[in-house]
This record gives sequence, structure tokens and C-alpha cells, in this order.
Amino acid sequence: MTERNMLKYIIKLGGGENINREAFVRDLKNLDGLYLVIHGANFARGEIGKKMGYEVKTITSPQGYTSVRTEKEGMDIFMMAYAGLMNKRLVEMAQMNGINAIGLTGIDGGLIKGRRKKAIKAKSDDGRIKIIRDDMSGKSTQVNVDLLESLLDQGYVPFICPPILSEEGEALNTENNNIAATMIHQIPGVNTIIDLFEAPGLLKDVNKPKSLIRNLDKNKLEEAERRFTAGRMGRKMLAVREAFTHGVKRVIFADGRVDMPLTRALRGEGTIIE
Amino acid sequence: MTERNMLKYIIKLGGGENINREAFVRDLKNLDGLYLVIHGANFARGEIGKKMGYEVKTITSPQGYTSVRTEKEGMDIFMMAYAGLMNKRLVEMAQMNGINAIGLTGIDGGLIKGRRKKAIKAKSDDGRIKIIRDDMSGKSTQVNVDLLESLLDQGYVPFICPPILSEEGEALNTENNNIAATMIHQIPGVNTIIDLFEAPGLLKDVNKPKSLIRNLDKNKLEEAERRFTAGRMGRKMLAVREAFTHGVKRVIFADGRVDMPLTRALRGEGTIIE
Repeated sequence: MTERNMLKYIIKLGGGENINREAFVRDLKNLDGLYLVIHGANFARGEIGKKMGYEVKTITSPQGYTSVRTEKEGMDIFMMAYAGLMNKRLVEMAQMNGINAIGLTGIDGGLIKGRRKKAIKAKSDDGRIKIIRDDMSGKSTQVNVDLLESLLDQGYVPFICPPILSEEGEALNTENNNIAATMIHQIPGVNTIIDLFEAPGLLKDVNKPKSLIRNLDKNKLEEAERRFTAGRMGRKMLAVREAFTHGVKRVIFADGRVDMPLTRALRGEGTIIE
Repeated sequence: MTERNMLKYIIKLGGGENINREAFVRDLKNLDGLYLVIHGANFARGEIGKKMGYEVKTITSPQGYTSVRTEKEGMDIFMMAYAGLMNKRLVEMAQMNGINAIGLTGIDGGLIKGRRKKAIKAKSDDGRIKIIRDDMSGKSTQVNVDLLESLLDQGYVPFICPPILSEEGEALNTENNNIAATMIHQIPGVNTIIDLFEAPGLLKDVNKPKSLIRNLDKNKLEEAERRFTAGRMGRKMLAVREAFTHGVKRVIFADGRVDMPLTRALRGEGTIIE
């Protein structure tokens, strides 16, 4: 990638019900550098599943963490929600705003490769530990940087979502935090991560929107991690610390429900870690 | 595109229930040149729609032709079935067979652009003609040849499906015959079109599988068109005649339900027009 064509921003867009996707897409034009978008679709997945009579199942680890269970039918619905409805509606919104978006999942052209979790320990309702061997989820390990660079060089804006590709060519569910971490690890020069979700930013007390933490010193992340161990935020904090070890200069957590979410995030209305 | 990297085959894969997609993907490795795949998903769309309590609606033209009606909810389900489930399952099957497939719709990177039909005449049940103005369907007019060439040059195999992109950036439903015709018109050097569907090929009598027409002279297409005026086959025949005016050397209609469907098609087991 030439200096001019260096990827500056990785933007994560949450898949929650109240994310203002039209406002997000309109605001993309205010960014001053190349970017790509990694998006979720968890609310859409739940809604489609419900309408089709399929309930999203979860796995509880022996330590008590819960994650989504992905069997074959679950992966069908995952593909419909992520690669189908959400990815294409976002690409359409972008195109209507003059942004030449190209929607890709991790399996397309082997964009994001990873490893399937071949044995997952899970706690049954009766407390016994069982091993699940047919789950289609995994961890990303590799980005097809050549494909990304080629698309960015040609002026396209990648809109990316799972599934990712296993070593055997299977489609796998994975976390977007995980995809972002692998990208930061393998794409040189990424300056800023912006993570938009359904909260004003990082909160001292998750029940109090006014307890927003405006700034966090990247050298004090270990301490912060201890406070945010709960589920999703805990995983986000871990990803942040890793990002800084790979040269990222700034991570912003901000509100994806508002107008001009990116402009506000960059202006300091969320949580800036640097 | 360099001579070496010339697109040789355009393959259309039907969206019917009984298409043998695994056999199709396995057979791709037997092709002796570059190719791309345009696929349908009409059966999957119907099934997903049914499960979600949405019935695919049709429009009857004043001349009596029927086509699919695409309103907003219909487009949601269209995206889930085509771009989501079918495109990604095909890409996954290809990847499992060592083919570096990349799944794209016409809206991604403006791959296929077209015009929305802004006023469609339709016959109501009571026989009166009404004008439909909010239908999200259209006709393709333009292919992003640069994007296709760049992907083919890098060794990817494009798996393409609708929607396509309107001039205003909207997602539009269109016929795959239409996409194929636009490609043939704009991509130089395409040699062969293979069209796989749920029949042994072109039949003299649609109810008699043994009435297969093995060969058809491309100079006698007008005559053949008069025999095949009914709906889908009529539109296919029209597309064939156009293909030959743009330099295509051979069009093959063949059975997509069998093992090794491409090998058999090229061996002459369907209908070869040349």
C-alpha cells in the first residue's frame, strides 16, 4: 500500500436495534482518510430467527461466560442476517450517499481466515460439563491483505462482516472484536479504531449513562480491564490493549445511536483512549 | 485484461430446488479457462418468504406476462436469500473445493448498474390496468469491467447475483438473463455461455424430457424463438440471439440436477447452439 493509500480508520458498527445506520453512512464522508467498516447484525439475526421459528441458542462456558451457539440452521440464519440483509442494506445506503462500498464476508476471496473451535466445553443446565464438537464458530488468524489493499487502491470502501473461512473452507461465526484485532495485527499503519454501539461510550456504571469516561490513558488499561471484566466490554478492553501493542494510536468508543456519530466520536463525545 | 486472463465462460446456475449445487461446484475445476458464475435463488427465496409469512407477489402485464413484484419487504427477503444464504453457501462450497470464490451482488462496488422501472403497467384481478411506481426492479445497463478484471487477474472466481444498483444507488431486482446479456455486451472475448437449469436442455415439448433438441444452428434462432415464446424460455432465446451478435461462439442449455453438469454440458448432453 502506498503512503497515500494507507488505511487510517477501522470502524466497528454495532448490530443493535437502535444503531442509526443512515446517520452513520451519511457521516462517513466527513472522515479524512481511508477506512473500512466491520459491522454486526445481532438484532436482525434475532428478528429473522424469531420470524422463522428458530431461537438463537447460547453456550455457557465452565467459567460462566455465554456465547452464541452456531449449528447449521443457525449459520443459515446468520448468513441471511449478516451477509444478506444487513451487509447489502448498508452497501445500498452507502451507494445512495455516493460512497462506492463493496460488501464482503470473511469467506469471500478468503478475506478473513481462522480456525474452527473443534471442542467447546459447555455447562449443561444440570451443571455437568459436555463437549460440543459441531459448532461452526472460530477465531480469526489471518487477513487477505492483498485483496483489501487492491480494493482500497481502486477506491472501494470495504463493508465487512462474518462469517470467516476455516482452514477447511467452512464458514465460521466469529466476534467482530476478533476480526478487528487480526486486521490491526496484519495491516500496517492503522491509526484509529472507532467502535460505535448502543451506549455513550465507556461507562463507570453501566446503568448510568452520565458516568461516561471521557479519556483513558492507554498505559492504564490493565487497571481499567479489571473494572470491565463483564462479557462484551471485557472482551473489547482486551482487544484495545492488543491494538496499542500493534501501533494503533487511538481507540474511540462512542454512541452509534446519534446523528453524526463519527464526527462526534472524533470530537471527543465518547471515550477516547490514547 | 491480458489475453491469458480473458474470461472464457459465463455460467448461469438456476435457483431451483433440485439444482445439484455440490456437483456443480466440484465440476468447476474441469473448466479449461477463466469463468464467472451468475446464480439464482428463487426456490430459497420462496421458502424463506413462506417461513417468514411473506408471499412472493407477482405482476401480470397487460400482455399477460407475469413477473415478480418487489416491494421493500420483498427486497429484504430477496437479499437474505440471494446475497445471504445462497451466495455464501455457494462460496463456502467453492472454498471447500479449493476454488477461491468471491461472492458479490451487483450493488457491491457498482458491479452491475441499471435503471429502475419507474412505472410498470399491471393488470388488476378485475382486468383494469394500473400503474405501479414503487417497484424495486429494473434492467441492467452497465458492468464494472475494471472491478471484474482486477478480481480475475488476482485469481478470484466471482460468484454474482442480484440485486443490481440503480442510478440513484438503490438495490434493484433483475433477471439473471439480463445481467448475462449486459456482461456479454461489455466484456470482450467471452466464448461460451453455459446455462444450467432443471431440465435436460431445450425441449421440443416442455412436458417430454425425451424431446431434447441436441443442436441448434445459431442462424436459425429466429425460427426457434417463434416456438419458444412462453415466459422464461422465450426470454432465454432472446438473450441467446443477442449473445451471438456480441461475439459469443457457443451457448449451451443443460441439466443442473445431474453429477458433473458442466462436463456433460460441454460434451453435448444438453442443447448446444453454435
